[in-house]
Amino acid sequence: MPRPLLQLALDTFDLPSALAPMQQARDHVDVVEAGTILCYAEGMHAVCALRALYPDKLLLADVRIAEAGSIIAKLAFDAGADWVSMVSGATPATMEVVLSEARSRGRDVQLELIDGWTWAQAAAWRALGIEQVIAHRSRDGEALGDLSWKPADFEQMRRLADLGFKVTVAGGVEVDDLPLFADVPIHVFTVGRAIRAAADPASAARGFQEAIARVYGATAARA
Amino acid sequence: MPRPLLQLALDTFDLPSALAPMQQARDHVDVVEAGTILCYAEGMHAVCALRALYPDKLLLADVRIAEAGSIIAKLAFDAGADWVSMVSGATPATMEVVLSEARSRGRDVQLELIDGWTWAQAAAWRALGIEQVIAHRSRDGEALGDLSWKPADFEQMRRLADLGFKVTVAGGVEVDDLPLFADVPIHVFTVGRAIRAAADPASAARGFQEAIARVYGATAARA
Repeated sequence: MPRPLLQLALDTFDLPSALAPMQQARDHVDVVEAGTILCYAEGMHAVCALRALYPDKLLLADVRIAEAGSIIAKLAFDAGADWVSMVSGATPATMEVVLSEARSRGRDVQLELIDGWTWAQAAAWRALGIEQVIAHRSRDGEALGDLSWKPADFEQMRRLADLGFKVTVAGGVEVDDLPLFADVPIHVFTVGRAIRAAADPASAARGFQEAIARVYGATAARA
Repeated sequence: MPRPLLQLALDTFDLPSALAPMQQARDHVDVVEAGTILCYAEGMHAVCALRALYPDKLLLADVRIAEAGSIIAKLAFDAGADWVSMVSGATPATMEVVLSEARSRGRDVQLELIDGWTWAQAAAWRALGIEQVIAHRSRDGEALGDLSWKPADFEQMRRLADLGFKVTVAGGVEVDDLPLFADVPIHVFTVGRAIRAAADPASAARGFQEAIARVYGATAARA
């Protein structure tokens, strides 16, 4: 199974607060995420700055497109994003224009699965050409304060991978959780606070990479 | 019927492009809208700048909250917005936290009606405490290239007003359309390109205010 990528989610209220931990952790991060909050706070200037600083890293603008899709996608791609996020509640028409904008530039779209999606929709998204999805742990459990990963979470990710999706895992993965994903084909692990708020972000990020290598083997990382 | 307010939608790709027409039209504009595109492009800096320039005008941050509502609302209110927008696809839980954030500061929330909403939902939103909605003309007609206002559009706005909502009309109102709204209680008319892209934005905005006064009488504007 190819080794998953490590994404650092920069969900801060301003750019400087994002730059400090990112710069420290940069040697151990594969994908830089300009988080939704950061995008709203600083606009596409945040994406431009991250592109300028890390020209060789994958860069996600987590703009969570719901409508007015092609213009927001254009803004994010112009600013240098490789990937933009779109919510699963977007209409097929919006998905199509965003995907087409991405394809015309050799970029990509990540579809964030929001509660209420169905497997019939998932099949339709694949047919439309969506290749990447963002999966969370069950929100029902989260709402009850239960932050553990459940067999149903892994089952869902496996089934998404079986449909041909590259799966990003978002939402509070801890380094000790990684062995639980051993049999699950994951494209990207997203980590935020556990690296960003660590006393030593570089060492925290390196810890995640080492855990990923232990679980998935030190094979080549996914493209 | 109280006189509706005139809102200038600043949907530009950068702040300077918004400032030029806004500054020219400022004496004739009641509500300043930092459009979705502008918010994504410049972040909350755009909202801060508009607040600084026009401290006495109502200011809408058209951030179209769908999720992560309380943080985005906080950002927009901190930047000086009086109103934030939220899409009708947001969950009741998101609506509740955004509304509560607004209420705690004496601000307000506008709910943008996205295709697929129901009258049962509308009644539930009222019960939740939502007071303002944003209505568009029928998207079906728009998709077919028919930009005229239909009896069904006015009927819908009247019924929303009957439910107790203050109704903002968005999406391509022309000055010649205004007489069509004579019997419809409208809170805010949103105008974008017709003022922003006019050779003389001040004169275009004045034209809208004069048309509003002709249709609704020169009574006191709505609060």
